This record gives sequence, structure tokens and C-alpha cells, in this order.
Amino acid sequence: MRVPEDIVSFLRKEDDFLIATHINPEGDALGSSIALSMALELMGKRVILYDRDPVPYFYRFLPGHERFSNSITPEASRISNLILLDCNDPERAELSDFVREYRPFTVIIDHHETRRDSGDLRWIVPSAAATGQMIYHLIKEMGIGLTEEMATNLYTAIAIDTGTFRYSNTDSSVLLDASELVNAGADPSSIATALYDTWSRERFELLVHTLNTMEIRKVEDKVWVAITVVTREMFQRTGTGAADTENFANFPRMIDNVLVSAFFREIEDGWKVSLRAKGGINVAKIAEAFGGGGHRNAAGYRIKGDLDKAKEALMSLITQKSVTHYS
Amino acid sequence: MRVPEDIVSFLRKEDDFLIATHINPEGDALGSSIALSMALELMGKRVILYDRDPVPYFYRFLPGHERFSNSITPEASRISNLILLDCNDPERAELSDFVREYRPFTVIIDHHETRRDSGDLRWIVPSAAATGQMIYHLIKEMGIGLTEEMATNLYTAIAIDTGTFRYSNTDSSVLLDASELVNAGADPSSIATALYDTWSRERFELLVHTLNTMEIRKVEDKVWVAITVVTREMFQRTGTGAADTENFANFPRMIDNVLVSAFFREIEDGWKVSLRAKGGINVAKIAEAFGGGGHRNAAGYRIKGDLDKAKEALMSLITQKSVTHYS
Repeated sequence: MRVPEDIVSFLRKEDDFLIATHINPEGDALGSSIALSMALELMGKRVILYDRDPVPYFYRFLPGHERFSNSITPEASRISNLILLDCNDPERAELSDFVREYRPFTVIIDHHETRRDSGDLRWIVPSAAATGQMIYHLIKEMGIGLTEEMATNLYTAIAIDTGTFRYSNTDSSVLLDASELVNAGADPSSIATALYDTWSRERFELLVHTLNTMEIRKVEDKVWVAITVVTREMFQRTGTGAADTENFANFPRMIDNVLVSAFFREIEDGWKVSLRAKGGINVAKIAEAFGGGGHRNAAGYRIKGDLDKAKEALMSLITQKSVTHYS
Repeated sequence: MRVPEDIVSFLRKEDDFLIATHINPEGDALGSSIALSMALELMGKRVILYDRDPVPYFYRFLPGHERFSNSITPEASRISNLILLDCNDPERAELSDFVREYRPFTVIIDHHETRRDSGDLRWIVPSAAATGQMIYHLIKEMGIGLTEEMATNLYTAIAIDTGTFRYSNTDSSVLLDASELVNAGADPSSIATALYDTWSRERFELLVHTLNTMEIRKVEDKVWVAITVVTREMFQRTGTGAADTENFANFPRMIDNVLVSAFFREIEDGWKVSLRAKGGINVAKIAEAFGGGGHRNAAGYRIKGDLDKAKEALMSLITQKSVTHYS
């Protein structure tokens, strides 16, 4: 990966940075931000890390997670440079007002496709598996010695965005970079344990109850939809909440012919539906038809009213080839 | 990884090989055997692949899986060299009688600890993550060009034995080798889909039934054992078999305080117990106490008689700190 010279010289020249990332941050946003802040401090720079939201409890194993501030302090507002990581628009970090008011020089470093060109300097690499992979190459390029703490953050960033090397963005460079990060001190198994094997017993029980609700609807011979449901009664019974259902929709995808997993979570006036696909059916189109949105293989929407009717509405849309175009 | 010269010269010198691996073969056994057979054939050798058991249906995506024979044909019995892969005793391949009768020159290549020294030539590397990793280095050392088919088999072998780079045997060399195998044509995401997202509906239903049996036994405050059970009645009800339970023991490990997951599968005269740990408790020691074996974090044994008694026997051993020494 080629690191642009203007990014490197900007970081070398300037003295103070506000690093911010998107709201509801996940592993790549957090890990790449923390690692870059550590690297810049090793260069003698002043850095403040900002996110609107607190670091989720299951990411508090990341060394340096406590560096994040959730408010723009007077000190932060005096910093002259903003680095936006893992998103490419100040809006995604809820910093539009801040940028308008204080006009910091703004640098964007991201691996997502851009919708519009924000910032004064941009480094966008959609082929990178994670922003963490870009930050790793940036740190190498700047000749800063990688510490174990930086390596742990960057490895986590890459691990989460590739599903520990299971998604289609896993190429040989990702595995090579991961190997080098392990040499620098990242511990693959303790990171994987922190990411995947720290469910509460209650959350696991909720998962089992949810899987017990599974029904398979056959659209065609090898085109199945799996429907699972979690009700408010189930949350009460297990002492859990909505945040505990993260990732639930993925489990029925394990079944060979299940091209779409639809997970219905009861909300006040109806259902929040999470769709997960594995190619063949573009669930973003389905979600959009219900006023929601998302990506090709992961999308969601809300629907009011009765569960059975909500299921039928989904199934009737999936069977319309104009929307789903599996083949 | 240093490849012993005597192994290389043996493979170069000899002309015909029976490659065999353990009964109930999994991804490492299958992938390393198939890849080695392909490499030897490229060298102009005659190779027969043998396993007592058929290749499980979910491993039939491996290119070359149809090479396996499940019987010792007259042709196979005339071969003068036996290579035993991913196990270190002809007994584990149910080949003790064959070895006694035909006395082939026997080479052992394995990453499991040995209990006794079988074979005429041994290459045992317990620090290797998978036998597939050893075979990769062997093929490189012999200067044979890696084909896409070999790379897919070897990547699968490594992926399954490291849980796609999540287990504690994942070090920087494993990730580096995986990166090179991707360069040689292995496709991480299609292999991961084949390994994890192609369950039959019946197998998934069996998993849900199994998870419904889960009980948590608390050894200490944050030291829990999860026990799950599958009975022959459950196999009948779902139309599944023993091979479908591969990986079942891993699911309860997702719970934070579950240091050991014990999965009891009903067999003719009792129970086959699979133990999975995540550090803290060495399950190989527990399995050995029951006459079984395995690794620190994955081991198994058989026990006769009543289920409740079998559970109690396990729990009473786990609570003996001499065996488990968690801390």
C-alpha cells in the first residue's frame, strides 16, 4: 500500500491534532484512532481523541481506550488540525457544526467509498480491508517503532473488519500485515477471545431462545429465508436488552441454502428487522423498499404492527425478483 | 520451520506411498493428506490416499477429496511405504493390523504430542499449528510448485486447526504461511464460507437442540463448566449423525466465564466427551485421566455407562486443582 507523501509531511509538520471517528464506533474506528494517537505522541505531538459515544464495554480491552473524550472541551476546540478516521464526512462523527465554527484543517483517512469529497486532504483506499491496515502502513512509512499497544489496536481493527480473516476483503496483504503485527506484540488468541468469547450467560441464553424460534421459508429449491424473532417478553425472561442481540442475525446464515437471515426484534410499535445475506440477494434493496437501508449483505428496517403480517410483507417482497434478483 | 533432511530424501527416493490419516478425519487431516498426495504425484510418484471413514460431506469442497479410498485394496496393500499424517500411531488410523501384516516402511508426520514412538521415521512438531503447516513447509523445501488446489487444501487445514486464526496456536508464522497460500491461489472467504456457512438445516437444528441441553456448573466464582449433550434419539429425530456434531463443543465457550465446554455425545456403550477450553484449564490432562488425549484447549475421551455419573466424574476431576491448575 502506497502512503501519500502529503499525509506523511502533514503529520510531521503539524503539532496538534484532534482525532475523531464515527458515532457508534466499532473495532476498526477505535483501534485505528488509538494507534494513530499513540504514534503521534511518540513523535512529540499533542493529540486529543474524540468520539460522540462512549467506547462500548466489549472494546474496553483495547489498550488506550480511556484516551477517548466524548465532549469537545475548550482545549480540543483550540486544536488546529482535525483527522477524521474510518469515515469520510464530519457529519458521520457529528462534527459538522464544529468544523463550521472552528474551521480546523481537516484530513480524512478511510477505507469506505466516499459520497462527497470532504476535508482538505484525503487518503481514501476502498481496497483496504480496514482503516487499521492503512494506519499500520502509515506508521511504518513514518518510521515510528510499533509498540505492543499499537499492534494490539491495529490487529483488532483488522480482525473485526475481516471477521478474523473470513470475509472477502481478506487478501494476502491483510494476512501479511497481521503477521507483522503479531511480531510487534499483538496476541491473536487473546484478541479473538476478547472479541468473540466474552458473552454473558444471559446473552447466550437469549441467543438459544431466539434460535428456537427459527422458521425456514423456501422461496425456491435452494433459496431459503430463515426467520428468527426476539420479543420483549424474551428480554425480560433472560434479563437482556437490545444491545445483546448484536450479531444474532448472522447465525442462521450458517445453513447452506439460507441466502437471507431475517431477524425480527420487537420494538414499541412493531418490529426492527435485521437482514443478513451471503450473496445472491441484495438485502439493501429490500430494506430500502421498507424505508430502511444498508449494504448488499447487511441491512435493516422498521415495520409497524403485527408480526405475522410483517413476515408476510417481507416474504412477498423477496419473492419479487425485481427486488432480489438472485440467480 | 526446519524440515528434516531424512524426510525429504525419503520422499525423493521412494516411488510409491500409501498416505493415511486418523479415523473421523477433519480439515487438517484431509487437507494435508490431499495436498501431499498432489505434490508427490507432481514428482511422478504413485500415491494412494486412505481413511477408514468417508470424507464428511461438508469437506467435499476440498479439491481432490475424491482421492480418498475407504478400504485397503489389494493394490494398496502392495505399496511399500506408509505415510501417517496428523496422527502418530497406526492405531489412530485403525491400521495396526495392516502394519503388522504388510510391514510397510512407516513415516509419521504430525503436530500432536506423541505417547509412544511409532514408525520408522518421525517428524513431530507440536509447536506447529496444523499438520498442514508442516506439509506446506515440506512442499516448499522440496521445491515443488504449489498449485491452487494444494494451496486451498493447506489453507483449509490451517484455518480449521486455528479456528481461522483465533486459537492460541496462531502465531506470526501461521499468518505469514496463510498469506503465502493466498498468493498461491487459496481464497480465504470462499474457504470460510465452505467451512462455516454450509451447514445442512438438519445439522443446524441438531445444534439448537444441543444448546437447549446446556447446563452451567460453577466451579468457582468465574470458573464455569458448560455441559451439553446429544443423544442417539436426537440424531434420529433430526436425521443427523456423529459427523454433524463437529465444532458443537465450541459454542458454549462464547460465554465469558465458561473456561471449559464439555460436549457429551451418546455412543454404543456410553459417551464420547469433547472438551474445549480457552486457557486456564488444561483439558488434555483431564482427557488423559479418562484414557483419552488431545491438546491443552481441545481434547476428548470415552466413558462408559450412565450420563449423570459421567458428568459427575468430569466435574469431580475438574475441581481437583492438581489436574486443572487454573489460576
